[in-house]
Amino acid sequence: MARIALDAMGGDFAPSAPVAGALLALGELDHSHRIQLVGIPGVIRQTLDEALAGAYAGHAQHLDRLEIVEASDVIEMSEKPSAVLRGKPNSSMHVGLKLQVDGLSDAFVSSGNTGAQMAISSLVLRLHPGLSRPAISTFFPTARQPIVVVDSGANVDCSPQELVQFARLGAVYAEDILGRTNPVVGLLSIGEEPEKGSAAVKEAHQLLRQSGLNFQGNVEGRDLPVGGSDRGPIDVVVCDGFVGNALLKFYEAVAPMLINMVARHAGLSKEQLVGAFKQLDYSEQGGAPLLGVRGVSIISHGKSNPRAIMNAIKVGLRAVETRMNDHIGRRLAENGQQGTAA
Amino acid sequence: MARIALDAMGGDFAPSAPVAGALLALGELDHSHRIQLVGIPGVIRQTLDEALAGAYAGHAQHLDRLEIVEASDVIEMSEKPSAVLRGKPNSSMHVGLKLQVDGLSDAFVSSGNTGAQMAISSLVLRLHPGLSRPAISTFFPTARQPIVVVDSGANVDCSPQELVQFARLGAVYAEDILGRTNPVVGLLSIGEEPEKGSAAVKEAHQLLRQSGLNFQGNVEGRDLPVGGSDRGPIDVVVCDGFVGNALLKFYEAVAPMLINMVARHAGLSKEQLVGAFKQLDYSEQGGAPLLGVRGVSIISHGKSNPRAIMNAIKVGLRAVETRMNDHIGRRLAENGQQGTAA
Repeated sequence: MARIALDAMGGDFAPSAPVAGALLALGELDHSHRIQLVGIPGVIRQTLDEALAGAYAGHAQHLDRLEIVEASDVIEMSEKPSAVLRGKPNSSMHVGLKLQVDGLSDAFVSSGNTGAQMAISSLVLRLHPGLSRPAISTFFPTARQPIVVVDSGANVDCSPQELVQFARLGAVYAEDILGRTNPVVGLLSIGEEPEKGSAAVKEAHQLLRQSGLNFQGNVEGRDLPVGGSDRGPIDVVVCDGFVGNALLKFYEAVAPMLINMVARHAGLSKEQLVGAFKQLDYSEQGGAPLLGVRGVSIISHGKSNPRAIMNAIKVGLRAVETRMNDHIGRRLAENGQQGTAA
Repeated sequence: MARIALDAMGGDFAPSAPVAGALLALGELDHSHRIQLVGIPGVIRQTLDEALAGAYAGHAQHLDRLEIVEASDVIEMSEKPSAVLRGKPNSSMHVGLKLQVDGLSDAFVSSGNTGAQMAISSLVLRLHPGLSRPAISTFFPTARQPIVVVDSGANVDCSPQELVQFARLGAVYAEDILGRTNPVVGLLSIGEEPEKGSAAVKEAHQLLRQSGLNFQGNVEGRDLPVGGSDRGPIDVVVCDGFVGNALLKFYEAVAPMLINMVARHAGLSKEQLVGAFKQLDYSEQGGAPLLGVRGVSIISHGKSNPRAIMNAIKVGLRAVETRMNDHIGRRLAENGQQGTAA
């Protein structure tokens, strides 16, 4: 039995998408699980009523597993993390995350302001000892099986030590969420030779060789869609959040462009091809855990629809069930001082 | 009338691919142009004989516009640029580039060791005043028209001033090679707000606003396949060579992966779909000029086939005909001290 707190006020389509996503999830998940909708109660109740009177009429039977938790402040998508961190202490993010600290919830899911979620998660849940930043990891579909790209947007200007931290976090994520044994880690660079790359990447390469991780060496941009290099499959690709973010957004946009191109060429309708690209659809992924915080905080796309939010809730549930957070803590502790200095 | 020097010894398929590419180009280009095959004469002659006895039998008529220029050293694909820079003074790269300095040639094209070509081009041709590094710009096909990504692999750990230099070089390239008027420049970052990005990118943003360039602001990974942001089309995307190289290699690999995925889904053969991806095929691009050197040095893919080499020769020809190099020199001089300090 898990209790998942869901930010009802965050995301481009809040509160309707989170509320509908909660109803979808309650219908689909094992009935031992509960959802806590966090936000302004009047707004949530009205949205719930509308959903139950409309497309979600069949979901009223699940309401006994849905709880409303009051949070009076709303964080807008455009607000600066530094401003909301202290300025809106009763935001749905603060309140939703605080539930975990108080032992009242097991995970938090939001499609709201990502920077704010990172900052508030770090403040409220705190980081595991030895970490200097949390990281976002994302699945990239490949010709083989999905790979984990970490960091995919949280951090820029990363030190070599932080890149090693990302590798450790990504490896546990690949084990717990993707079920990979002894995950193979690649370091993104501009050539496979250890002496290729930026100063930080070259130093990270040397640190990773001594990290105890299953390090394959440098990988290149071309290895990501393939899911491996000519030295074998990879499970985790480590990079600075700047390049990770650029690649992720590029990947999300290139699929629809190629659908159009192929459809035009082959005389097919877009609809005939969309199915082939389903695994490139972020709503199928749902969300990504913020790695390194002492708890579960799932970051979902700002444009998440109800289905994406349901899938993000499932990611949160899987993180709870595999005890990923404890696993990360143990793994970091085992590796003592390695890769911990910022 | 232009004289194009072609490295007969560089590339994974040398000397056969460059020799065949030269024959293809001689047949297709205006007959006022000449090609200079640079390398070991005996090897070149034997390869020519084989080509003319085989698939290129019809091309013997063009031999009067083909010259062989002797160069005794061969640079291997795996050699370090620093080692060959001084250690192989009679390489086909040195000799081929020196022809321009001596007024005997107008452009140099190679599919050999890229790092060596950059280093030797910078040494032999020298850089325009005020530049600290040359840059590689590459076309990215988009849903609109192709965009120029600069730097796409030559330089890592770039300063804000170098990013501004790349923008100036890329803008002239877009004007001369793509025919764009007053090209729109975007700076790749992780969000469109000026305060998003790495330290170097944030400072470059401020410098670009005062650069006199047609600067649209930050763009994101998703804007590349689209060919623009929601603020309009873009012509040039500026980035560090690390992220440019990662994106380029990712793009080259993702198309074949998607072809397979779509073909499987739609029950089509790969061959039925390949045509749709033709514009993603690097052999259609041929090559990219090394920007910033005082001359023309075209970098072609190491795996170039004869067709790719012919297209690289065409890129060189266009750079000669538009006088792109003089244009770059003038533009940099006009902008005086702006963006010149490294």
